[in-house]
Parts: sequence; structure tokens; C-alpha cells
Amino acid sequence: MTTAHPTAQPPGQQPTGLIAALDIGGTKIAGALVDQHGTLLHRVQRPTFAHDPGEAVMLTVHRVIEELAEDPRWSEVRAVGIGCAGPVDITRGTVSPVNIAGWRDFPLVAQVAADPAVLGLAKEAGLPPEQGVPVRLAGDGVAMAAGEHWCGAARDSANAICLVVSTGVGAGLVLDGAVRPGPSGNAGHLGHLTVDFNGEPCTCGSRGCVEMLASGTAIARHALRSGWRPAARDAATDAAAVAESARQGDPPALAAYERAGQALAAGIAATATLLDLRLAVIGGGVAGAGDLLLAPLRRHLDVYGALSFVRPIEVRLTELGPNAGLIGAAALTTTAAR
Amino acid sequence: MTTAHPTAQPPGQQPTGLIAALDIGGTKIAGALVDQHGTLLHRVQRPTFAHDPGEAVMLTVHRVIEELAEDPRWSEVRAVGIGCAGPVDITRGTVSPVNIAGWRDFPLVAQVAADPAVLGLAKEAGLPPEQGVPVRLAGDGVAMAAGEHWCGAARDSANAICLVVSTGVGAGLVLDGAVRPGPSGNAGHLGHLTVDFNGEPCTCGSRGCVEMLASGTAIARHALRSGWRPAARDAATDAAAVAESARQGDPPALAAYERAGQALAAGIAATATLLDLRLAVIGGGVAGAGDLLLAPLRRHLDVYGALSFVRPIEVRLTELGPNAGLIGAAALTTTAAR
Repeated sequence: MTTAHPTAQPPGQQPTGLIAALDIGGTKIAGALVDQHGTLLHRVQRPTFAHDPGEAVMLTVHRVIEELAEDPRWSEVRAVGIGCAGPVDITRGTVSPVNIAGWRDFPLVAQVAADPAVLGLAKEAGLPPEQGVPVRLAGDGVAMAAGEHWCGAARDSANAICLVVSTGVGAGLVLDGAVRPGPSGNAGHLGHLTVDFNGEPCTCGSRGCVEMLASGTAIARHALRSGWRPAARDAATDAAAVAESARQGDPPALAAYERAGQALAAGIAATATLLDLRLAVIGGGVAGAGDLLLAPLRRHLDVYGALSFVRPIEVRLTELGPNAGLIGAAALTTTAAR
Repeated sequence: MTTAHPTAQPPGQQPTGLIAALDIGGTKIAGALVDQHGTLLHRVQRPTFAHDPGEAVMLTVHRVIEELAEDPRWSEVRAVGIGCAGPVDITRGTVSPVNIAGWRDFPLVAQVAADPAVLGLAKEAGLPPEQGVPVRLAGDGVAMAAGEHWCGAARDSANAICLVVSTGVGAGLVLDGAVRPGPSGNAGHLGHLTVDFNGEPCTCGSRGCVEMLASGTAIARHALRSGWRPAARDAATDAAAVAESARQGDPPALAAYERAGQALAAGIAATATLLDLRLAVIGGGVAGAGDLLLAPLRRHLDVYGALSFVRPIEVRLTELGPNAGLIGAAALTTTAAR
């Protein structure tokens, strides 16, 4: 896993100075100073208290920015990039993350732009204070794809889907050489593609979504329903514990990973067939189970990806790992977001 | 239904002169002279003998061109656009249509460029004969979307999926203001999205594809399996006959349209969720059944299109009807194809 690629340049125009990147999800709020090569210079992280009121969650964002601003290189920052759990609305600069209940149409861009440390950057940059440095927003899946495309596993690919399989399933798209945020910044919502049209209701309101079948949460739920129990009493009942049992040959645990691989394959193949692409980059904790997930995934991709122009669909592991979203949020400040 | 929009201009650079357009499928081979406003000036059509050897099918293409070239305005043609049943390969100029068995990696672009009437255009255009006028190729779904985006039901939309539901299901994508052919020219293969991942095998090799559930062929097959019989002895057993029975309230006929609408809704909603778009333009003979198909389609779209950024997904009927592919093939000569 690398966090930089020495010869990589951000797509499009050359940025000047450093970029402050934020990666905001239901579990953690991370921030970093990123240079023009995609190198993380300084990284900070705090837990998200996702059930707190919206103002409290925003305070954590301000604290992350404050910590970043303590770095002497803060004065070199010339743009802020934000990847946030979706849905987002990049035309209005607002966010409504499913898993942060206190943020609904929350004006995240305006609040970050009004942060004292961010306001101070206008002066450093020689801008009038009412203008300020640019603050760019996209969904976290879009940001992750921007990172992998800038200096990760999709850096040599003009067309790819990049996905994160953890408690949920997120993704972003690289099309014709550029990350495509879509008009509202939400393109790439692979987790809510229906692959089982008479399947179980999803929390989103639809049915048979990839996330209901392939997320870490879904793997654990499916295993438990089929009679799986963790080896040690009082052990966690999460996807990692299911993986441990599967490695011992436990049938319900193996079946849960098989089903997840099948659902992911159907979703990835649908994306490939619809968009005429052949590369999927996969990251996230559940992908860390390795061949337990990847072997069924590749086997089912060979079935669902049947048309000649998608054969074979290549699956690569993330190169940026948990930093893909931060590096990608920095990349957004150059071209991907409006 | 209109075949022209007086103020429409092709996207991108202004073409000069007329465009010769070809729309090649398993049932018919159509050709037209198209002007800079998307108006069809002269249209010809011949049946495809899809089981003939590849050379014989190509002879029909030459005959269509020959008929077009009899028009005195042929000398004004400055480009040739081809929409062909897929898969196609626009990087090599070849086609391998599933339903034209004699064409596998068939060099359609080279063969059209070598047509005597097309060769003659170089002289009219003042080009050296070894250069010739440009000949552009894309999949028929891409061409249809290019037509609707140029001067049809998607002309005011930067993002849309345009689909044709007839014996099969084809589609093309408009993204960020332009038709997106994809690297091989096959983007938009909605008919082969898996919406029922444990469903029936499809002729493409995958399972539970939209086309296996929603095409005219699938509607008739499903109705017959459920006990439907046409009202008149010796009547056709096609989707139109099923529609007639459904209008009389026949339960298996109604159920077949219900299932088709549900499958199309799952596929369109998946497209919308993945690409951050909200418009579907629908044409083709099966869409001609009107509310029999559109009512269940809209009802199920409301379920599968659950995320805020796709709500509501609008369904519009084609404005160009069976000429969308020809008009779109002409539009391809300006920007959409390489």
C-alpha cells in the first residue's frame, strides 16, 4: 500500500501550494495536508459521534481543521477538498449522509469555508477575504475513485469503478480519463444497485440492493441467520469474525462470503456492461478478507460479465487503502468537482 | 412524433454539408440523408437477411448506399455515420452483432468506406481519394441516444438514458451534456444488466438480464408460459397480441407486462443511481403498448429509485420514434464517436 506516487500529477491544471483534504463518514472524520504529488504530509483523525446533533458533528470537523492548521505548512494551503458520506448535493454545497442523522441538507461547504483557519488562508493567498480559497465537495465514493485514479490502482486506466466494501458499500466512477461526480456529486452509488429485484427491502427504500447482500453488516447478518456462531464466546459477530470461521471451513460462514461475492459481481458486471469498462478497484475492510471474497467475486464476474466488450473484468486491490478518500478529496480541487 | 427540430444544432463543431446515416439491425438496414438540423431528407430501408453469409448482408448495405446515392443531393454528403447492432468495436471499426451470425469482427467501417459511392465523395469534397470522408461507427443504442439528445426527447437534458424496447432491449447514455459511446462504442447495454441475480440464464451467458424479462420476446414467452393464448386462433403470439389480451383484462397477459415494467424499472433505477441521472426516454414497439407498460414501470421506479438524488425519475416517450437511430448516426459524425 502506498500513499504517494512520485511522478503523479493531479489531472488537469497544476495546482499551486498544498491542499487541505477532509474525509467525513459515519465512523471517523479525517483530515490531511496533501501536496501536488498526492503525498500525505500531515494526517489527523477523530471519531464521528454520528447520533449527536448536527452542530456537534460540525464542531468535530472544526477541531480536525484546527489540528491541521497547527502545522506550519498550513499557510501554504490554497484549496480545500471534502469527500463526505452521501447523498451530497454539490450544486448547493449541502450533505445529507444516511448515517449522520443530524445532517440533512446541511450546508457543509459554507460551514467549512467559514472556519477561522480556512478564512485566514485568503489573506495568505492574497485573496480578498470575501472570496476565500476554493472549497470543493463530492460524495466519499467519488473522492475515493479520484484518489485511486490520481495515484493509486486506477492511475493507468481511463475507465474504472473503484469501490469500498466495509460496513456499507460505496463507489465512484472514472470515465474517459476523468472522475465523474455526476450533476449532484453522487455518481457511483453501487451499493444501491438492485441485483435481486424481488429481494429483501433495503434501508434506502428499494429492494435487493448490493449493500443488503455484500456489506460487512450483511455478511454478518446472513451468517448469523444461517446458524453461524463465533468460535469464542463473547467474540465479536462482525464480518471479520465470520471470515475467521470461514477460514476454518465453517459452511454458513463460507456461504455468507460466497453470497457477498456473487452480489458484488452482479453489481460490478452491471456497471461494466452499462459503461463499457473492464476494471474494478476494491478496498475496505471486507475486501481485506482476501480470497474468501475475491475468489467468489471473480468466479461470478465470469458469469455476469458475459458480453465480449467487458471480458475479462479485472479486479485490483486498492493501493491507497484508507487514505484513498483523503488523497481523492485533494484531487477534487483540481478538476473533478465544480 | 417529429423527425426534426428547426433550431437544433449538432453538439460540438458545426458540420458542413449533409450526412449519410446508416442504421443496421437484425431486422432491417435503413439509410438516410440528414441535414445539419437533424431533418431526414431521403430515407430508404431494406430487410436484413440475418442468417445469410456476412458478404450477403454487406451487399444489402451497399444497395442501401446505392439507393441513397441516386439522390442528387448525395454529392453534398461530407460524412457517414453508422449505428449498428452490438457488440461493436469502434477502435477497430468492426462489428459482431448477436443477431447477424455472419458478421463476427466484421470490418464494417472499412467496407462502407470502400463503397464506390462513398469513395466518390472524396472527390466532391476536394479530398485526396486515399483519405476519403470520415466514417463513424457506434452501437445502435448509442446512436439512438445521440438522436434523442440532438433533437428529440432528451434535447434539453445533460444526463439521460435512452432506451428501445422491442424484440430486444437496447439503450445509450447521455452524460454531462454529451453522448458517451464508451471506449469500444458499447456503453448503455441496459438489456444485459442483471436485475435478478439468481434468475434464468440469458442468451448472452449471464443470468436474470433485463432483456430476459422485459423484451417483447420475453413478454410473449412469459404470457404463454402462464397460460395466455391469443384471442383468435392462428393469431400471432407476440407482445402486441399479449397487449391486446391485457387490455381485455386477461390476468396472465397483464402479469407479463407487469413483470416487464418491474424489470425495466430495476434496470433504469440502477442506471440512475449509478450515474446520478433522472431522465429515461423510452421508445420501441413494446413501449407502444402505452400505460400497460408505463404504469407498472413508473410504479416500480418509485420503489427502486429510492435515493434522494434520483427522485423522481422521469419517463418520457421517444420523439424521434423509429428514426432516432438514423438521426443519431448522423449526430455521431460531429462529436460522439472517435
